[in-house]
Amino acid sequence: MGGSGKPTISDVASLAGVSVSAVSKVVNGKSGISTATRERVLAAAAKLRWTPSATAVALRAARTRALGMVLRRGPGLPGTDPPFTLLVDGIERELTPRGYGLLLHVVGGEQGAEEAAYRRLAEEGRVDGVLLTGSRVGDTRFALLRDLGLPAVLVGTPWDDDPIPSVRATHPDRGIRQAVEHLLRHGHRRIAYLCGPGSRVHTHHRKRVFKEVLGENGFVPSPSVVDGDFTPAGAAVGVADLLAGPRPTAILFADDSMAVAGLSAARRLGVDVPRELSVIGHDDLPLSELVHPRLTTVRQDLVGLGQAAARVLLAALGEVEDAPVRVNPPELVIRESTGPAR
Amino acid sequence: MGGSGKPTISDVASLAGVSVSAVSKVVNGKSGISTATRERVLAAAAKLRWTPSATAVALRAARTRALGMVLRRGPGLPGTDPPFTLLVDGIERELTPRGYGLLLHVVGGEQGAEEAAYRRLAEEGRVDGVLLTGSRVGDTRFALLRDLGLPAVLVGTPWDDDPIPSVRATHPDRGIRQAVEHLLRHGHRRIAYLCGPGSRVHTHHRKRVFKEVLGENGFVPSPSVVDGDFTPAGAAVGVADLLAGPRPTAILFADDSMAVAGLSAARRLGVDVPRELSVIGHDDLPLSELVHPRLTTVRQDLVGLGQAAARVLLAALGEVEDAPVRVNPPELVIRESTGPAR
Repeated sequence: MGGSGKPTISDVASLAGVSVSAVSKVVNGKSGISTATRERVLAAAAKLRWTPSATAVALRAARTRALGMVLRRGPGLPGTDPPFTLLVDGIERELTPRGYGLLLHVVGGEQGAEEAAYRRLAEEGRVDGVLLTGSRVGDTRFALLRDLGLPAVLVGTPWDDDPIPSVRATHPDRGIRQAVEHLLRHGHRRIAYLCGPGSRVHTHHRKRVFKEVLGENGFVPSPSVVDGDFTPAGAAVGVADLLAGPRPTAILFADDSMAVAGLSAARRLGVDVPRELSVIGHDDLPLSELVHPRLTTVRQDLVGLGQAAARVLLAALGEVEDAPVRVNPPELVIRESTGPAR
Repeated sequence: MGGSGKPTISDVASLAGVSVSAVSKVVNGKSGISTATRERVLAAAAKLRWTPSATAVALRAARTRALGMVLRRGPGLPGTDPPFTLLVDGIERELTPRGYGLLLHVVGGEQGAEEAAYRRLAEEGRVDGVLLTGSRVGDTRFALLRDLGLPAVLVGTPWDDDPIPSVRATHPDRGIRQAVEHLLRHGHRRIAYLCGPGSRVHTHHRKRVFKEVLGENGFVPSPSVVDGDFTPAGAAVGVADLLAGPRPTAILFADDSMAVAGLSAARRLGVDVPRELSVIGHDDLPLSELVHPRLTTVRQDLVGLGQAAARVLLAALGEVEDAPVRVNPPELVIRESTGPAR
């Protein structure tokens, strides 16, 4: 190193045996650098504990090396819910090795708060792009982000075939299909579905698959698709309502927290799970294995979805080759909360 | 507005009836501006939908208006755990109204990954300060951040009276104390504590309080403080071990996930909760109300802690007056998982 000062880009270049411009290209994620060279440069930088200075960063065509997420807090629900923590785990697996960070903004439900947050991100140039979750019916975010010129990737299926880049699992119907078939095989005929809010795109998708599978097997769904609100309290009320009428022998839930709340509500009413009622959740959060009985649930590859979304966005920014991450299809994980119909 | 273009800082100043320099001071969080003026400027900016341009932002003495958090993923645990989502909720309540964002970096457990992340944040000037959680025995982060010149605030009690600014609840002992007294009142004498990992400062603190309260009441803690690892799987094993020996009639757990896993493990072994075993969790996560029986637990004001930490850091950065947020003391929430000793 030149003297005893901080290491410089030249020190890194000479240790790696490459030109300063090659180091700069690696730092700025430019193309035309072989994997071997990139690895040598990164190893040299690590060895010397060199990081690009703020000036070098500023020279990177205003790249902030941050991706943004704006989360909306629901009534009674934090902005960052348990599935979110798994998604972030996946996102960070792609960001961290590349020195990218994830900039979070959690906004309340007030009219315009979300739009204002995106506008600020764009106008202040704080992020290179944003990741979106929770695809909505009539979603206005996609058009807004195009107006703002902010690259964006959605985790999920866009409403109305919007052209926003998006990632989803292969065979997205598989999990719900397996869940209904599992119940039918166990002799269940009165199957209820406590689905998510109608404002979410996936609610309609999953409802359709639920009815389709019943139809294919010659059953008409009982009048038992109950609109939920994604809150555990709502699920407990829904279950009490369902159990007050002609009883279903099985209930599917829109997510695991709703399923656990519903299962507890049933047991509180003296209904044994799974002997008198089978219960299936959705997502396979860590929670599902903690409870007793352990929850049968549709596993979603949330970590894979987060990784895939981050990668598609990084590829759009020219940071990585567009090598897709495989997102596993949803699949039923059979545990203890389902059994033969009585 | 001058013409039909974007609003400028002069438009805001003239609508607010103040000088451009006053608007600039408000934007840059400088002192010497009255509350009334600040409110007029913010109202005018909101009305015109004006946000400071990237250039103005660059002029803010390198203020990034972002705070950072580096989270370490544990083996089998995501970096962003359920208590974290409540903390973030509190943090964002302070950041969002001020246009601040939270920059997350989740790192793996490899040697040096965490230090490297802090170094990058500091050297690239990406955040104005950082928030720390999970105070550790022999914590090396505080000295590192001082070396790096990065303002930092810890949620929790620093190891070895380190002078890092920190926030904690008033009466931090109250919750554990109430939990033990609740059990003693119900006739429990063999009380076990499945505590957190010894690497965490709060583990030692809570263990000491646990033993103290037993001692004050004339009881010697049975050889039943079991070191846990904060994983549900570890808790299940711990409970099985405890129930194999001379049985405790009550178990305290270091967190709610461990308590729920322990409760399920007990019931799987045919032990009824609370008839044969009382169970108490820690934190009062949403999970505690979902399960059956509902969990008796020590509530932590995680949202308040997040708010307080963000506020102390924003005050150090000159963004807010140093008006402290009140963090509620931990308190026992009695639900269904505790009852009289058999």
